Amino acid sequence: MSNQVEARLKELGIELPQAPAPAANYVPFVQTGNLVIVSGQLPMVAGEIKSLGRLGNTLTVDDGYQAARICAINLIAQVKAACGGDLSKVKRVVRLGGFVNSTADFTDQPKVINGASDLMAEVFGDAGKHARAAVGVPSLPLGVSVEVEGTFEIS
Amino acid sequence: MSNQVEARLKELGIELPQAPAPAANYVPFVQTGNLVIVSGQLPMVAGEIKSLGRLGNTLTVDDGYQAARICAINLIAQVKAACGGDLSKVKRVVRLGGFVNSTADFTDQPKVINGASDLMAEVFGDAGKHARAAVGVPSLPLGVSVEVEGTFEIS
Amino acid sequence: MSNQVEARLKELGIELPQAPAPAANYVPFVQTGNLVIVSGQLPMVAGEIKSLGRLGNTLTVDDGYQAARICAINLIAQVKAACGGDLSKVKRVVRLGGFVNSTADFTDQPKVINGASDLMAEVFGDAGKHARAAVGVPSLPLGVSVEVEGTFEIS
Repeated sequence: MSNQVEARLKELGIELPQAPAPAANYVPFVQTGNLVIVSGQLPMVAGEIKSLGRLGNTLTVDDGYQAARICAINLIAQVKAACGGDLSKVKRVVRLGGFVNSTADFTDQPKVINGASDLMAEVFGDAGKHARAAVGVPSLPLGVSVEVEGTFEIS
Repeated sequence: MSNQVEARLKELGIELPQAPAPAANYVPFVQTGNLVIVSGQLPMVAGEIKSLGRLGNTLTVDDGYQAARICAINLIAQVKAACGGDLSKVKRVVRLGGFVNSTADFTDQPKVINGASDLMAEVFGDAGKHARAAVGVPSLPLGVSVEVEGTFEIS
Repeated sequence: MSNQVEARLKELGIELPQAPAPAANYVPFVQTGNLVIVSGQLPMVAGEIKSLGRLGNTLTVDDGYQAARICAINLIAQVKAACGGDLSKVKRVVRLGGFVNSTADFTDQPKVINGASDLMAEVFGDAGKHARAAVGVPSLPLGVSVEVEGTFEIS
């Protein structure tokens, strides 16, 4: 199964980043019981922001979708670290919380957060199907377009 | 107790809708251990949006309260599905997360989300009393006025 | 350890308030298994709001930091009540959710929510290091600047 998930990532052409180390008095993830709670992830690749701006204004729905997908890759990198490197321990993606930097007129938050949801299903199959909330926000850290947090059940 | 909760719903004149089927790569709820996490619910009845717009602008606090109540009915429908139809399995409403489509001047989010909180207490009694967060957001999926997500403990 | 945490609070010059009693059909916290979920806390001291307004507008980052710190003190007061007064039962601060009343231009939500994160580390040490999400919102209950909710693991 580990090989299955890793093989799926390879098929998708996704190389997981190193999970960033703790940068402050909070940490990228906490395990409590069988649950791993991962901090809100931003659309960053190799320490560089890949998507700045606001949906409904400078960015298209597809821009947001791609940004959410990057957030989801970073979530998977964190949960991999939480599993000691063995993604076969992921039993279920429990919940994603998606925050979309939005104008007051933008109402396609679900289509944006699908970028994260679709990736979870592509990588984990049925175990990747999760509960979620997707909402608009007026601003996000560093001016990014999307932030996604996640809860995972591991064995 | 199942009969008690169902009887209470009947007294309140509430007919639970069919819990909508999964529409995408996320699902209406996920169970992990004894917890059921339900996706953000919108003020929809029979597939139709019942409350569009923004608090502090086109909508009154009571409009928002009624919208939050509909979201809560949909949450209960989902948790009923999670319980295989037997609402007596609900041991506690653990948490509601309420997002209120708000102008920058609107600060009565608690009064709006009371529409969901009150219903949980009416239906489940003390077991319906939950932790919650209520915040304003600039925009929500499809332009709805309120979105509420929930966490439940079941047996 | 109880004495350690209480001693640390004293060193920091922090007197925990009485945890406010339930005011509506929701409650300040719910315990489910070993988890305590605490409702969104506002920057209130002795029933009085200490920080009104919006970041990026009338308030500085440090104003927001101090407000987040007060929210965190109130979270600790609630979890103390959940522990029957014995803070040594806190095994881990699992997650903080931080909502910052923000203009569309304000992007320093992390620096604001550090006011809550830093306090958790100061009070609980390594057990205080948590997952978190920090986002902007256009408005908050009563017009406060910051709201923080929390999840704790207790023994």
